[in-house]
Amino acid sequence: MTRILGIDPGSQRTGVGIIDIDASGRASHVYHAPLVLLGADGFALRLKRLADGLHALIEEYRPQEVAIEKVFMAKNADSALKLGQARGAAICAVVMRDLQVSEYAATEIKLAVVGRGSAQKEQVQHMVGLMLNLKGKLQADAADALAVAITHAHVRATANRLGVDVRQAWSRK
Amino acid sequence: MTRILGIDPGSQRTGVGIIDIDASGRASHVYHAPLVLLGADGFALRLKRLADGLHALIEEYRPQEVAIEKVFMAKNADSALKLGQARGAAICAVVMRDLQVSEYAATEIKLAVVGRGSAQKEQVQHMVGLMLNLKGKLQADAADALAVAITHAHVRATANRLGVDVRQAWSRK
Repeated sequence: MTRILGIDPGSQRTGVGIIDIDASGRASHVYHAPLVLLGADGFALRLKRLADGLHALIEEYRPQEVAIEKVFMAKNADSALKLGQARGAAICAVVMRDLQVSEYAATEIKLAVVGRGSAQKEQVQHMVGLMLNLKGKLQADAADALAVAITHAHVRATANRLGVDVRQAWSRK
Repeated sequence: MTRILGIDPGSQRTGVGIIDIDASGRASHVYHAPLVLLGADGFALRLKRLADGLHALIEEYRPQEVAIEKVFMAKNADSALKLGQARGAAICAVVMRDLQVSEYAATEIKLAVVGRGSAQKEQVQHMVGLMLNLKGKLQADAADALAVAITHAHVRATANRLGVDVRQAWSRK
């Protein structure tokens, strides 16, 4: 069994989702929640809250692999900067625990979860809920975090079949 | 005496500079170098190299306070994203060592070092060399890192005179 942590970085809320993949490749839901960063006193402390939150999760759930969404083109340089900082802090927190991070673009995630790279965000949320057998509507950032974890599960299953080391393959991108 | 670490974040090279401030407010040079991040295998590993490099420096030189340049408006969303990630990883690495980070805009740094918020980058490099009694031309990222450390020294001297806790005052910005 492999435990995968998915991260959907954001400077106000960062979504985290954890799934387990059994030997047959079936995914099951372990955990999801938003790390709420707003309210922290100053931007640096917001990034600390993000890093501390990820470390606490890694400590408690011990994921073996980590996947994060590659950032879509941000609306403008200012929001790109904020998003980049959240993403940098998240990656920093993960690699400092000696975990490798695989990155997936939004179109890869949609393709893996819905089967169509141009799928709507709502379809992704819906499919994640179905695949993980979750009741009720998922919040967008939790759904995105679980979706990137599912994507990683798919990619590693394919890579395993082909005899490729998925972390090697993806860390070079 | 207070030891200040200045950081000039960049996704290819991150400048670091360390100065000591004595009781009379006089600055002396301790260390400067670029952390070269290019060449690391993948972007996540680049951020790890940045975080590891900062931790090694903090371990060796034990700065008490840390200052970082607030990012100027980046040219475009893509470079803002890269710069943001480097900055987020740097702040994450610092706050995880329980050090607080003060942030200064480029105009504040120019004002503190040259006396004019609209000074040229070369003037900053020149003045940093003069103030710290360094021979030879400083590289831009090292000069910027030392400059933000000097700026922090000025601001905290002023704050001390006014009886304000500088870290409180600046972490709220």
